[in-house]
Amino acid sequence: MKVICEKEELMRGIQMVSPVTPSKNTLPALSNILFEAERDKIKLSSTDLEIAVQCYIKGEITEDGGITIPSKRFANIIKELSTDDEIEIKADETNQINIKSGKSKFNLMGISKTEYPVIPEPPKNNNFTIKRGIFASMLKKIVFAASRDSQRYVLNGIYFILGDSKLTMVATDGRRLAYAKTNITQAEVKGKAIVPTKAVNDILRLLYSDINSEDMRIGISDNRISAEIDDITLLSTLIEGVFPNYEQVIPKKSDLKIKLNVKNTLTAVKQMALLTDNHLSSDRSSAVKFYFSQDLLKISASSAGIGSGETDLEIEYKNDPAEINFNPDFIKEIFQSIDEYSAIFEFTNSLNPAVIYPETDENYLCVVMPMRV
Amino acid sequence: MKVICEKEELMRGIQMVSPVTPSKNTLPALSNILFEAERDKIKLSSTDLEIAVQCYIKGEITEDGGITIPSKRFANIIKELSTDDEIEIKADETNQINIKSGKSKFNLMGISKTEYPVIPEPPKNNNFTIKRGIFASMLKKIVFAASRDSQRYVLNGIYFILGDSKLTMVATDGRRLAYAKTNITQAEVKGKAIVPTKAVNDILRLLYSDINSEDMRIGISDNRISAEIDDITLLSTLIEGVFPNYEQVIPKKSDLKIKLNVKNTLTAVKQMALLTDNHLSSDRSSAVKFYFSQDLLKISASSAGIGSGETDLEIEYKNDPAEINFNPDFIKEIFQSIDEYSAIFEFTNSLNPAVIYPETDENYLCVVMPMRV
Repeated sequence: MKVICEKEELMRGIQMVSPVTPSKNTLPALSNILFEAERDKIKLSSTDLEIAVQCYIKGEITEDGGITIPSKRFANIIKELSTDDEIEIKADETNQINIKSGKSKFNLMGISKTEYPVIPEPPKNNNFTIKRGIFASMLKKIVFAASRDSQRYVLNGIYFILGDSKLTMVATDGRRLAYAKTNITQAEVKGKAIVPTKAVNDILRLLYSDINSEDMRIGISDNRISAEIDDITLLSTLIEGVFPNYEQVIPKKSDLKIKLNVKNTLTAVKQMALLTDNHLSSDRSSAVKFYFSQDLLKISASSAGIGSGETDLEIEYKNDPAEINFNPDFIKEIFQSIDEYSAIFEFTNSLNPAVIYPETDENYLCVVMPMRV
Repeated sequence: MKVICEKEELMRGIQMVSPVTPSKNTLPALSNILFEAERDKIKLSSTDLEIAVQCYIKGEITEDGGITIPSKRFANIIKELSTDDEIEIKADETNQINIKSGKSKFNLMGISKTEYPVIPEPPKNNNFTIKRGIFASMLKKIVFAASRDSQRYVLNGIYFILGDSKLTMVATDGRRLAYAKTNITQAEVKGKAIVPTKAVNDILRLLYSDINSEDMRIGISDNRISAEIDDITLLSTLIEGVFPNYEQVIPKKSDLKIKLNVKNTLTAVKQMALLTDNHLSSDRSSAVKFYFSQDLLKISASSAGIGSGETDLEIEYKNDPAEINFNPDFIKEIFQSIDEYSAIFEFTNSLNPAVIYPETDENYLCVVMPMRV
């Protein structure tokens, strides 16, 4: 193999595929990037056996071939090279890699590409296009609610439901749930898939490196999701199992609807969260209290070892006084996900879940269980 | 105590004094900031018993007094308050602290100021002024050479020598040494002091928060150094002990003098450092080799498990070929400290220390021992 690339293009490719490299693995080749030059294309790939990322980069191919190159060392060397000089990368059948640039020469030991796992093709059918910005924003609004408890494997991802020209996403950890939907143009696309949080975060990473209004392509098969963004393809295995019936969890409409200023509520909850204890415990000291009375919402917190605090928000409320307690982190994450000026807070009593959603966007809502303190 | 402050001013004060707070300590009050309002001045202080920082902030005092406030919680609360509202801080004899801002109220438990260690006054005599930029730049050019080995206590700092209208600074870890001097206007100031690296880094932190061409004041007593920067004072204990005779370590002038381009040499050494092994070992695989031959410096490295590399620099050199090996980190840190275009590299042979200094600045030099590989 022999290719000539420019530094920026090489760095871009390495950055796109690198973070997938597993830190611990039994297969030495997985610490490497697969570097292939074939049919006028240079392709970089990496995989941890669950997620794979491939990226095409520009360059001049003098000799076809492929090799795997130690990821970190390769990245560090390319980073130190001058942008003024072209970079020549050469590998021979002894797996010696020669890198030349300007007056610098490097010789690294690679591993044969035959020892690298075969990366499957993206699903050919059942795929659809979506605007990158919309997809990224949906993922971000949902992913925070996914469970981080590895014991609840089936909840460690976002549930995708496709059908009737709609994409719906749901995530829950059993104490809160986030739900969003959007229209897609491909009516024939159907399916359900639990996409691992790690894959979601990798897709977000790839999207944020170049967010724009262009389309991207998502493909879903029985056991795999693909995301194609320009010359980058991410493939991930899906989580096997049955996602809980989320429709049951979303409460019916309540009459207790309060309009809240998103920014002020977020600030108030952030302030009061500072007076709470360990948020994983479930006693009063780890909760923020929402107390509704005549046109006033008092948010407060108190814990013996730390102190107490309270703050007021003006609201429209004519009902009987009511109190409801929450894990402040849950409320923070929900309000951070609402990009409108006002949100609607809907509840029935201190024991049943509350529903929070943007004032005018019907395609997004969050459900949160109160704390019983 | 009762005071009213603005958020920015309070945050500045907290940020200036906070990082000194020790993470572990036996005295609970040391996790707190000492907050004092007396004679029209609000003073914030913190200390870990070795270093103390005090900062005056602006505000309105309604009632004199003092209290110690849990540092992190205090900082986090103030950070979440609005810049639009004034902040009222009140403490009573039960050590309850009330913080009020806008519609938010907080109640924290403080510790009496009588439980806080007394912070000594800065040395009254033997002090001098120096431009902040010059002082910061000297410290930075020296501190990297100080030993991080806690067994070599006396080398864990910068040695200050004052006298004859000069300030000299030296640091060494036994394998390299950095030396710098500058003129000061106060001819009568005399003394020697080993200033702990931690205090040096704290002074640099304070200086970088507002670097300008103004003067600062340094005071040195038998057991203490003070640095006064506007309304901030840092005090540190000194390291007790005898600093080694650094003048013996600096080699006499050699005839083998080579002019090097600072940027290119730094890049070359950074590149080759990527092919070296653990830099703490002392075999060939952890060294970069400098090979001088007819008008050419070849810098190279090689280690069995990783690979090899080499790069060339054009130089003026007419002597016999010569080889000298270095720890690449030492060379990198030295060249990073030279802010001129060219540096002079002076050596005698592969066993004796080399001297590196900026082409035109006689007030700075570094000595570095070669590796015997």
